[in-house]
Amino acid sequence: MSDPLRLLIHGATGRMGAALLRLQPDVPATTLGAAVARRAGTSAAGVAIAGVDTLGDVPAFEVAIDFSLPDAFDAVLDLCLARRAAFVSGTTGLSADQRARLRAAARQLPVLWAANFSPGAALLADLARRAAAALPQWDCDIVDIHHAHKKDAPSGTALRLGDAVAAGGGQPRYASIRAGDVVGEHTVQFCGPGERIELVHRAADRDVFARGALRAAVWLARQPPGEYTMNDMLGLTPD
Amino acid sequence: MSDPLRLLIHGATGRMGAALLRLQPDVPATTLGAAVARRAGTSAAGVAIAGVDTLGDVPAFEVAIDFSLPDAFDAVLDLCLARRAAFVSGTTGLSADQRARLRAAARQLPVLWAANFSPGAALLADLARRAAAALPQWDCDIVDIHHAHKKDAPSGTALRLGDAVAAGGGQPRYASIRAGDVVGEHTVQFCGPGERIELVHRAADRDVFARGALRAAVWLARQPPGEYTMNDMLGLTPD
Amino acid sequence: MSDPLRLLIHGATGRMGAALLRLQPDVPATTLGAAVARRAGTSAAGVAIAGVDTLGDVPAFEVAIDFSLPDAFDAVLDLCLARRAAFVSGTTGLSADQRARLRAAARQLPVLWAANFSPGAALLADLARRAAAALPQWDCDIVDIHHAHKKDAPSGTALRLGDAVAAGGGQPRYASIRAGDVVGEHTVQFCGPGERIELVHRAADRDVFARGALRAAVWLARQPPGEYTMNDMLGLTPD
Amino acid sequence: MSDPLRLLIHGATGRMGAALLRLQPDVPATTLGAAVARRAGTSAAGVAIAGVDTLGDVPAFEVAIDFSLPDAFDAVLDLCLARRAAFVSGTTGLSADQRARLRAAARQLPVLWAANFSPGAALLADLARRAAAALPQWDCDIVDIHHAHKKDAPSGTALRLGDAVAAGGGQPRYASIRAGDVVGEHTVQFCGPGERIELVHRAADRDVFARGALRAAVWLARQPPGEYTMNDMLGLTPD
Repeated sequence: MSDPLRLLIHGATGRMGAALLRLQPDVPATTLGAAVARRAGTSAAGVAIAGVDTLGDVPAFEVAIDFSLPDAFDAVLDLCLARRAAFVSGTTGLSADQRARLRAAARQLPVLWAANFSPGAALLADLARRAAAALPQWDCDIVDIHHAHKKDAPSGTALRLGDAVAAGGGQPRYASIRAGDVVGEHTVQFCGPGERIELVHRAADRDVFARGALRAAVWLARQPPGEYTMNDMLGLTPD
Repeated sequence: MSDPLRLLIHGATGRMGAALLRLQPDVPATTLGAAVARRAGTSAAGVAIAGVDTLGDVPAFEVAIDFSLPDAFDAVLDLCLARRAAFVSGTTGLSADQRARLRAAARQLPVLWAANFSPGAALLADLARRAAAALPQWDCDIVDIHHAHKKDAPSGTALRLGDAVAAGGGQPRYASIRAGDVVGEHTVQFCGPGERIELVHRAADRDVFARGALRAAVWLARQPPGEYTMNDMLGLTPD
Repeated sequence: MSDPLRLLIHGATGRMGAALLRLQPDVPATTLGAAVARRAGTSAAGVAIAGVDTLGDVPAFEVAIDFSLPDAFDAVLDLCLARRAAFVSGTTGLSADQRARLRAAARQLPVLWAANFSPGAALLADLARRAAAALPQWDCDIVDIHHAHKKDAPSGTALRLGDAVAAGGGQPRYASIRAGDVVGEHTVQFCGPGERIELVHRAADRDVFARGALRAAVWLARQPPGEYTMNDMLGLTPD
Repeated sequence: MSDPLRLLIHGATGRMGAALLRLQPDVPATTLGAAVARRAGTSAAGVAIAGVDTLGDVPAFEVAIDFSLPDAFDAVLDLCLARRAAFVSGTTGLSADQRARLRAAARQLPVLWAANFSPGAALLADLARRAAAALPQWDCDIVDIHHAHKKDAPSGTALRLGDAVAAGGGQPRYASIRAGDVVGEHTVQFCGPGERIELVHRAADRDVFARGALRAAVWLARQPPGEYTMNDMLGLTPD
């Protein structure tokens, strides 16, 4: 049996970071190498969190999972380059320059950035693209349902589903419902003469995203350098 | 503008044949070359139907659509070979010998046989296979809902969806509901940790199948000789 | 066994009238007394249709079903009063004066007017009202899906569902999808903390409305004079 | 502003008890009078829990919420009688004698026992009964979906929905799916000619039951002595 995979979790005091620390022990063959956040401290689960100012001193790790902010992004990417560690990131709001740095790093490291780490949502986008390509004449509607406090509509995931439909040649329309405390539900519906296809994804809790990022880390650590997506992890060929 | 595509409809007095005769005028760039059934007569829409005993005398056509019985199958296949016409067939209960003849004919003609001509149902099977391959650990359940008079359960389409899931590496389970006059509804559900995917197909009326066969005929007439499936018509690559 | 119930069908050449003539033979214990339309003629099913100018000469009937236009409404209501026949009407666009005449007639005849004769849609409105009253804090959304050619949104039935929710104390929001050839689907969704209720009605074909009107006629013929609704026919008490 | 309602939580170390202790602070106008369990200790949230052997010494309270075991039930019921406190209980497996004691206590106290404290599930049963009564000829199917570890099928809630349908005059059939980690989803479907009604309840997390019990406690404390149900709390008249 091989040594467990050592993880660095960056952004450990955020909501995603806390979920990653809580769920990591459930993932076989992984161990927590280090947890880092803006300020040193201790997680709800009692894990020691190092301050980002001591990032260079963290112990050895094979893969970093980064859910932080753009201003902390470069430091952790540099550390992965220095340590030859794989890099999983869900940090949003990156600048064009940061995106370029990520692509450049992918020549030396396996890198996976995603806006949504739910395997089901990534699959749904792939299926929606494929359906749109097969049924070009059918009407396509995307409905997202989220909790009443969500401000944006359509949701970011709904827009990415729409991009997938458009990539397949379709012209999606959107409807959004904001109600109760629904975690997230997306439907891509195709209506043709006398028949209908509905593709639905329901997320029951937010841990889905942390579990997906952990799964991505385990997968990414075994890949050669390159830029990867959730579709690659799921083995979804682009056709 | 090119000449319209001339169709031969074989099995013209059956339920599918009647639907084909009724819906053909809605399909642009086609014309009815001939309608043939066991016995000569006239359709509900007033179309003259030739008896199968005069099959050799039917006027020129580019593609045959056959929804008949196994004992009439060979004659229409022979006619297509003689006339170099494309051959669409939904006749069920073919013998192993007849299947072999169909394969042999595909060296000279474009041939498309299917058990279900609904484009949506064919797409659903493809998406189900793809989902099963991407989410190998998730539980997969297939539910079909059909009218109370349907005898078999699971439905034939549900079993084909299950074959697709199995081809993707999944292990489907089945549930069937027989109620009211539901034309046909199939759901393939995948349940993973904290999330769920549902792929649903609803057929609103039985014309779906006749429309799909007419669409297949128009597509098939433009293909080189070979054996085709509904997936080919939909442009669904096998991965 | 009692004599069959004799029906007068008024507006016999409209879409609803044609469906009524086609479906009436399936309703036990009824017979067609007469079919009347603006102009005399013959239905697709071969039924003789009298012109409205000879309305006074129609043979005996126990109940009239009226799906016509406002300008023909008064004549058939007068005939029902003269013949002491029950009166079912789905004619829309009645004037305030015509509504008052209908109420006055209900002192002498059983009268049932409805905008939607689907038993399921009437039940859905009743259940939605009841749910809104039981769950006053939950968010309520009404979604209707109809074919791409439907102009109005929300649908009339969606608005009536919203009236029912408001009668129960709720504040409904609306979303509408216009796609394919969907006959009509309405969802009333209630979202509360950690749970959700969805009430869905799906109409598979437009015959639903004609069947509902025929069922209403059979029921109404046995009632004492009064003004009735679909809820009364379904035995739905107002609480 | 009136004094807050003081609660006694009995069975405080069970899964429901822990959820009640965690969620009670979110319920306005309540305060925790005491938490009691078989053995004294401290909850995950740091609340002191008294041992059942000192039950007689607990401070004043207006309503008890009991999720314990049959052998501890009598003691807490006696305490409520002694203190004239309202009594909410979800303890299952009561003996016939214990049920009789509960009924007798209801002459002196307001009492509410339920197997399922989800307001949505209680409402669903009421709507299902009402739908079955209005549509006696329609086929009725009840589908429950629960996590793969659930042993019983149909679920207890599905059986209660079936009782409600039967009380309305229907004859329900059952189907169960056990998959993933679905918390609980119940569908009651009615199929008639050309139309269909689906009544769906989805529970997103198990806190639903604790929230429902707390809501029941607040409501029950204001009622006169008597035996109540969740339907009473929801204001659902029996027709």
